[in-house]
Amino acid sequence: MNYPRTLQWRGDAADGKLVIIDQTRLPGDLVYLDLERLEQVIDAIQRLAVRGAPAIGVAGAYGCVLALREGRGEAGLELLAQARPTAVNLRWAVERVWKEAKSDASRALEAAKRINAEDVAACEAIGRHGAQLIRPGMGVHTHCNAGALATSGMGTALAPMYVAHGNGVKFRVFADETRPLLQGARLTAWELAQAGIDVTVIGDDMAAIVLREKKTQLVITGADRIARNGDTANKVGTYALALAARAHGAPFYIAAPKSTFDTAARNGADVPIEERKESELREWQGALLTPHGARVFNPAFDVTPAELISGYITEDGILSAAEITGWLG
Amino acid sequence: MNYPRTLQWRGDAADGKLVIIDQTRLPGDLVYLDLERLEQVIDAIQRLAVRGAPAIGVAGAYGCVLALREGRGEAGLELLAQARPTAVNLRWAVERVWKEAKSDASRALEAAKRINAEDVAACEAIGRHGAQLIRPGMGVHTHCNAGALATSGMGTALAPMYVAHGNGVKFRVFADETRPLLQGARLTAWELAQAGIDVTVIGDDMAAIVLREKKTQLVITGADRIARNGDTANKVGTYALALAARAHGAPFYIAAPKSTFDTAARNGADVPIEERKESELREWQGALLTPHGARVFNPAFDVTPAELISGYITEDGILSAAEITGWLG
Repeated sequence: MNYPRTLQWRGDAADGKLVIIDQTRLPGDLVYLDLERLEQVIDAIQRLAVRGAPAIGVAGAYGCVLALREGRGEAGLELLAQARPTAVNLRWAVERVWKEAKSDASRALEAAKRINAEDVAACEAIGRHGAQLIRPGMGVHTHCNAGALATSGMGTALAPMYVAHGNGVKFRVFADETRPLLQGARLTAWELAQAGIDVTVIGDDMAAIVLREKKTQLVITGADRIARNGDTANKVGTYALALAARAHGAPFYIAAPKSTFDTAARNGADVPIEERKESELREWQGALLTPHGARVFNPAFDVTPAELISGYITEDGILSAAEITGWLG
Repeated sequence: MNYPRTLQWRGDAADGKLVIIDQTRLPGDLVYLDLERLEQVIDAIQRLAVRGAPAIGVAGAYGCVLALREGRGEAGLELLAQARPTAVNLRWAVERVWKEAKSDASRALEAAKRINAEDVAACEAIGRHGAQLIRPGMGVHTHCNAGALATSGMGTALAPMYVAHGNGVKFRVFADETRPLLQGARLTAWELAQAGIDVTVIGDDMAAIVLREKKTQLVITGADRIARNGDTANKVGTYALALAARAHGAPFYIAAPKSTFDTAARNGADVPIEERKESELREWQGALLTPHGARVFNPAFDVTPAELISGYITEDGILSAAEITGWLG
């Protein structure tokens, strides 16, 4: 399948390295970074050169190999786990490597490769199941970036698009640009265009008219966290898109692996919504957008209620909200 | 009332000048431009130093005075009328000045002052009627800029806010930043903050969560054109905001003078939607946002159907959609 490889390990535990795409340079430049020391991995995670929960987890797993071969031991792993405190996948991956390998760098590489392979397999299964929804001539709508760049495989929300494209299905994608950080314009549009998939970027405020004009008939987004009842926290704007999809009869699907489902959250009210720094809306490239006399409100996520969601595209098939609890066990 | 004066004529017909706020410099710098020659007015209109249909109309009317005192006659007025071909108010104002004054610059100045005074009066009446909707403690939501900067008076959508604020009512405003040109962040937030009104800027994709969290309980936007049945063309994103308002029980009002109602348009299908140049979504300040391999779709307006609109705040009171045709006569 033709999708960008966000990160790859090259070589063995003793002198190998982690090679990643520097996402801060996209879409202008495709630059690969060789990460050969723990500090380089931490830096790449912190400055968002690698982002997306699954991708951060896999990068963290390989980062353990570097930490251990530098003799940094458990303290080095803890430093790595703290690189982005809110990224649950990062701590989860680092702790799993430690449990399976302790201080042995070679065994850590094996553990990291298993985590990587599981992520790739989950993405592929999501792609296979979700591709059934994409019919020839369709317009498919997405928000933010839940693609190859956010995972070590072909992504979650974008995986069905890669599989359908690989099967020769002709369709169009509309990507909301996704303010304030523009992951839709910068990342989703870049990776789909690289793969030869017809993609069109719109302003977030244009999504409703695109659905109304039937330019898109299906919506697929990723998720940051899904509660047991199916309420889904994802990048802010997902909820508005779900409302517009409902108004125009377009089915709205969430694509996510089992690890995104939070068994501790009964519903959306249990999911805290992070606010990000106001500079993201106040300035761009040094130019003032919002005057200092005005406030800024910048929530990073919103919660889409389960009743607006047609189904959940998982590695085990497409589920309804009612099926989630039984599936999670 | 404390609102910025977008344009003002100073002096008499023989040696007076039109003084405008250069809106291309906002929100960073408040710079006034003295326009003393026809070419300066045309340039200001073309590069959006003055924008907003009513403001362009009044600027055009005063521009006639300059054209006539330069001895440019009807040809000069035609040049001015063509400065922005899609701005119906511009041609309307220029033709009215010509009809009332012919080549007489002094009579043209009187005609322009009448047009200016009528615009100011319509804004004030809209403000007075709409202010009844704003209750203490409320959050009021708006999109784009239909404020003092878009008229020669206190604006349309923002006029009720200026009047309520003048009456001592405490309330908050949430302004969508309004991609791609960010008139909400750059202009609406600037003029409300200048007036001491509590204003918060959000990304357009955050409007639905703001309504859901009841941070706003009332929406007022302007309009570019209103059909006889009440369907309303306005800045793209207005329709998505109306859908979100409906989902959360927030009344949604359009504020506009009689001149914005198009007696020739039966409904929204009769209103053409202009697409603007793709560079608005492809780059910002020279930085690439959307890669060249991806397409861009950039409609400037959308149509909000009358059934989502609670009422129309006009200079003659707040009307329902059913009352429009009788009122237009």
